[in-house]
Amino acid sequence: MLQPIKPYKKEFDYSYALGVFLTIELLEHKPEHVLSIILSTNAVKNSGLEKIRAIAESHGITIEVNDRLIERLSPKENCYAVGVFRKYDNKLDSRKNHIVLVNPMDSGNLGTIIRTSLGFKFTNMAIIRPAVDIFDPKSIRASMGAVFSMGFSYFDSFEAYQEVFSYHQLYPFLLNGRVKIQEVHGIKKEPYALIFGNESSGLPESFNTIGTGITIPHAKTIDSLNLSVAAAIAEYEFTRDA
Amino acid sequence: MLQPIKPYKKEFDYSYALGVFLTIELLEHKPEHVLSIILSTNAVKNSGLEKIRAIAESHGITIEVNDRLIERLSPKENCYAVGVFRKYDNKLDSRKNHIVLVNPMDSGNLGTIIRTSLGFKFTNMAIIRPAVDIFDPKSIRASMGAVFSMGFSYFDSFEAYQEVFSYHQLYPFLLNGRVKIQEVHGIKKEPYALIFGNESSGLPESFNTIGTGITIPHAKTIDSLNLSVAAAIAEYEFTRDA
Repeated sequence: MLQPIKPYKKEFDYSYALGVFLTIELLEHKPEHVLSIILSTNAVKNSGLEKIRAIAESHGITIEVNDRLIERLSPKENCYAVGVFRKYDNKLDSRKNHIVLVNPMDSGNLGTIIRTSLGFKFTNMAIIRPAVDIFDPKSIRASMGAVFSMGFSYFDSFEAYQEVFSYHQLYPFLLNGRVKIQEVHGIKKEPYALIFGNESSGLPESFNTIGTGITIPHAKTIDSLNLSVAAAIAEYEFTRDA
Repeated sequence: MLQPIKPYKKEFDYSYALGVFLTIELLEHKPEHVLSIILSTNAVKNSGLEKIRAIAESHGITIEVNDRLIERLSPKENCYAVGVFRKYDNKLDSRKNHIVLVNPMDSGNLGTIIRTSLGFKFTNMAIIRPAVDIFDPKSIRASMGAVFSMGFSYFDSFEAYQEVFSYHQLYPFLLNGRVKIQEVHGIKKEPYALIFGNESSGLPESFNTIGTGITIPHAKTIDSLNLSVAAAIAEYEFTRDA
């Protein structure tokens, strides 16, 4: 490949894991997509360096020490290592439960949801466009590297997702859903898809007639729960032992 | 008061609600602390303006139209209204359940936790220093104004909190807590305090021997849940009907 010399842009077909911790996560979970590793001369002091060298070597990945390049790729912060990797897409497992995010726009929220989802053993995520870029270094950072363990796939519309996964029970999360989240245990069927809308607008009205609408009751003093909070409570309750 | 002319700093004894929505939240919930309202000439197009004028008038609060001042106070974004208010502190209600945050450092997390807490009807929050500033406009923004409905109080140490509220049952959230969160229903006693540690380091070891340690089980593929996610799940489960 050509040597990357620019801060990340969505159009690139590669992206960066910025920092030692995220570079290790990348190397441990997706070594096959790594194009190169760039280290700063300061990295020699860092205890993660050995680990990076060892994994990179075992996969025949090039390591380059280049301070100026690191500064260019991560202009805003001190960064000791960058993992450059080719973007990829996963196939979702049709037998597993899915998390479906419809038009998420905030990289911080997406990253947090990926991390929480892994924590509750959801490893298949569908993202419906338009949506934030999962490979944006900000998403990677917010996920604390969990993105490299998550199976995900983008779809151009919810219908496009449904065409492929027509057997999933659909549970859209709505402010006025018919079933309270605490009451899902009697009714939930697997495999299911937990569906969440956009940060500010929630799910479009069309989801009122799809599957079984679920609501997380909360006091009227707030308009709604934060998206990553709602997703966390949903995942917690759906995987809770009755 | 002297006219404020600078972007917010922690040392100030006043702060700003930046934007029409937050200014309305401020006026509705804490009119007694409002010092003045500043509007941009663009605000005339905004539907919230009437509301601001009405509430301000009924409380005898001065309104000034001053574009340059607004730009100074909110240099980074388009802002149509600023509510200037004197900082305040609340007394916590000793009969109510408390949320205790030990050394929270991230304004986004704090704001999200305030919003979620209100959603689950927790209206008393203790914050143990060192900690992020609840009146930082970033915290106010992240709370979506919920901060103006939350009763909170800062303490210099957890011991200082305990001296005042010695009857609360203590539930520190730990990675290795003795009781799983799903099992609290048999044991929980009110009034209680749900205690959460810092974003990166969690609670200090000293909390291992305080009250009843609670853990939120999660897969080992992640190190921990995000602080605002952990707090949300805790609040959800503690207020869940059995």
